[in-house]
Amino acid sequence: MYHIISIRDFERSDLDYLLDRAAEFDTGKYRSGMLDDKLVALLFFEPSTRTRMSFATAMARLGGRSISVDSVEASSIVKGETLADTIRVVSGYADAIVLRHPKEGAARLASEFASVPVINAGDGAGQHPSQTLLDLYTIRQSMPIDGIDVGLLGDLRYGRTAHSLALALSLYGVTLHTIAPRGLEMPANIALELRERGMEVVEHPNVEEAIKDLDVLYVTRIQRERFPDSASYYNVASSYRIAPDLLTGVKDRLMILHPLPRAGEIDSAVDRTPYARYFEQAKNGVPIRMALLHEVMK
Amino acid sequence: MYHIISIRDFERSDLDYLLDRAAEFDTGKYRSGMLDDKLVALLFFEPSTRTRMSFATAMARLGGRSISVDSVEASSIVKGETLADTIRVVSGYADAIVLRHPKEGAARLASEFASVPVINAGDGAGQHPSQTLLDLYTIRQSMPIDGIDVGLLGDLRYGRTAHSLALALSLYGVTLHTIAPRGLEMPANIALELRERGMEVVEHPNVEEAIKDLDVLYVTRIQRERFPDSASYYNVASSYRIAPDLLTGVKDRLMILHPLPRAGEIDSAVDRTPYARYFEQAKNGVPIRMALLHEVMK
Amino acid sequence: MYHIISIRDFERSDLDYLLDRAAEFDTGKYRSGMLDDKLVALLFFEPSTRTRMSFATAMARLGGRSISVDSVEASSIVKGETLADTIRVVSGYADAIVLRHPKEGAARLASEFASVPVINAGDGAGQHPSQTLLDLYTIRQSMPIDGIDVGLLGDLRYGRTAHSLALALSLYGVTLHTIAPRGLEMPANIALELRERGMEVVEHPNVEEAIKDLDVLYVTRIQRERFPDSASYYNVASSYRIAPDLLTGVKDRLMILHPLPRAGEIDSAVDRTPYARYFEQAKNGVPIRMALLHEVMK
Repeated sequence: MYHIISIRDFERSDLDYLLDRAAEFDTGKYRSGMLDDKLVALLFFEPSTRTRMSFATAMARLGGRSISVDSVEASSIVKGETLADTIRVVSGYADAIVLRHPKEGAARLASEFASVPVINAGDGAGQHPSQTLLDLYTIRQSMPIDGIDVGLLGDLRYGRTAHSLALALSLYGVTLHTIAPRGLEMPANIALELRERGMEVVEHPNVEEAIKDLDVLYVTRIQRERFPDSASYYNVASSYRIAPDLLTGVKDRLMILHPLPRAGEIDSAVDRTPYARYFEQAKNGVPIRMALLHEVMK
Repeated sequence: MYHIISIRDFERSDLDYLLDRAAEFDTGKYRSGMLDDKLVALLFFEPSTRTRMSFATAMARLGGRSISVDSVEASSIVKGETLADTIRVVSGYADAIVLRHPKEGAARLASEFASVPVINAGDGAGQHPSQTLLDLYTIRQSMPIDGIDVGLLGDLRYGRTAHSLALALSLYGVTLHTIAPRGLEMPANIALELRERGMEVVEHPNVEEAIKDLDVLYVTRIQRERFPDSASYYNVASSYRIAPDLLTGVKDRLMILHPLPRAGEIDSAVDRTPYARYFEQAKNGVPIRMALLHEVMK
Repeated sequence: MYHIISIRDFERSDLDYLLDRAAEFDTGKYRSGMLDDKLVALLFFEPSTRTRMSFATAMARLGGRSISVDSVEASSIVKGETLADTIRVVSGYADAIVLRHPKEGAARLASEFASVPVINAGDGAGQHPSQTLLDLYTIRQSMPIDGIDVGLLGDLRYGRTAHSLALALSLYGVTLHTIAPRGLEMPANIALELRERGMEVVEHPNVEEAIKDLDVLYVTRIQRERFPDSASYYNVASSYRIAPDLLTGVKDRLMILHPLPRAGEIDSAVDRTPYARYFEQAKNGVPIRMALLHEVMK
């Protein structure tokens, strides 16, 4: 495990190992100086405050330092030179590179030119493996992942977070329930890949039908840009909105997750229910990223 | 003292306590590792380089780390989610949050959703308590604050710095001298509040009339936007400009202060007089912010 | 050696001293805590990611901290106050200031108002001494500089990097070979100054004629803005492009250097030849900047 590029590169034992490590970091089983003399370059070619902050936090918690290139500077890099050149130069400064880039495949390309480990922090429609790891971690903190029922709600066509999580969950014997507006269903090739991996995938016309069976409901954003006009967007968005009245009769251990930021998909009244676990999920980005940073630089 | 939101929340004993603590930090009575494992999030939703740099400096001097969200990233947050959500997420990363926000009341709102202490670093027309503390500190380094004569010069209508300082000084038996262009006088409700707190408030038509009686002259910026045209702005600005010839016959201990940046309100020839104390004042932002950061995270 | 402003301020013994120090930092002969309680302000009034990152890296490697003002914030400073005021304020926060500014002479001006050391990280068409030092350092890591043949290729009229390097090399008995498109030749006054310093300066009409005699080929960017139209730019740029076929029959020890970013001046196929040393050169920015930061703050 040198570069961290795609969740497809991980076997179940790799995932379990990283989740175990994160749990150790989470419970304080680490010395704050573990990465004392280490330096990570946070190369963010598009804004992603949450991800950048949690990597910086993770690095600081381990005693290491971060050097940041923000999106404005990065855009001037983009004009000036190829990603390959940038990566080779930054390899001369830092002990690892965390890369966020708008183009799918950028992280893989970067890993070919880097002389230090590269962690993919999201490459366009591609992968964002640390998000998937923190999603898994949040579930596993509450229940064993094996054999549970997980619902994916929202834009399952373009949402890379959902695809990536589904692929990882296929290693845990999970039953997947998909709930998506017409036109935003999970692409056939991904559904096929999941079934070939032995996953049971059940489509539902609406969330009411599915929710009582679920252990985890993973909500993603439905983007307005996908719709021809505001009216059809609001129409769809409102029927996929999670509000407290939907939550009567659900399992006691139901967890509602969301990669955040949310924009109306979950009513703020849900925040006060015991099912709301998305802020805890965001917080789990820190131990997961500690585990990843430590793993590639130890 | 958990959150630091408004100078109105402080009693005199709180102010004195913080000024004493700052004096200790200023004279080096601290271990550089006092906040060694601590992390502060600097959330700046509008640019404020000076304030951000001095908080970052203060944190570094105590051995702690800062993670910054700059104004460009912050504006993308604004689009994406509510302040309440941002604050809850960032609470999961950092041990305290320093917030700068264009909207009055934002810091108070943030403190209601944060699970870590919030320090207000300026919220629109609202409060900026660390600025007031460093103003008080700068005075107190030279003379006891009790019973002195302080002049406030410039835009006393919109200038939050002046209001906040006046409120704090009302706890020290100070006589307040106000000198403001027509239309930029101190709002009647604030003048009333000061008098109800027992403060003597004296209005002056011009700075010449007041300056010989002052121990402190606090100059603030007059913003061009407040005037209908350039001519009337320059007319007013020039008659409120501090130049060396104004300073004959003033008290020996007169201190001229300014929250900076200045834009012509003080002639640069004044810099070489012993009355010019505004750069020392800026520098005092560091011990004050060390005291605040240490107080909320110790 | 307090401020680091211009390569013209350095005698040969100063350069040799700094190169020796950098070599020590490069081989790990330093304690990581050498600048433990020190803080540097990186004031970048124009984007320069590479330079900023390598200063931040150098500071971190020595255990020190950086506070950054990026170009967006800096541009708001520019509007608000004079450089003199900014420098005096920042002098109150940091132990040294690294300044990048679009105006020639800005660093010298800053050094007059700063109460802490100032390192010039590039001021417009002026100086960028740490770049020259890392160029020298890269050469000296491979061969003694004295008496070698160095070619400067590209825009020698506006390229401050080339002027600065030529001045430094004149202290080492180097023979300088200049290869520039018509209209972008080295200015007569600089060529004269070099010859007065005892340097042999040989002009060449094209790179083919010069390359077999060179120990070092220093390539710089030819900027499109210098040409009346795209056609004449592409015409010139293509005839100054370094490709592998040019490199048959060159000296074994030939080093090709480039301050980066490159934009087509060097074919990426050259990267795989032993002559390509520009990524190593970029990496050498770190030990050079460690030496400079340590020197001014020790």
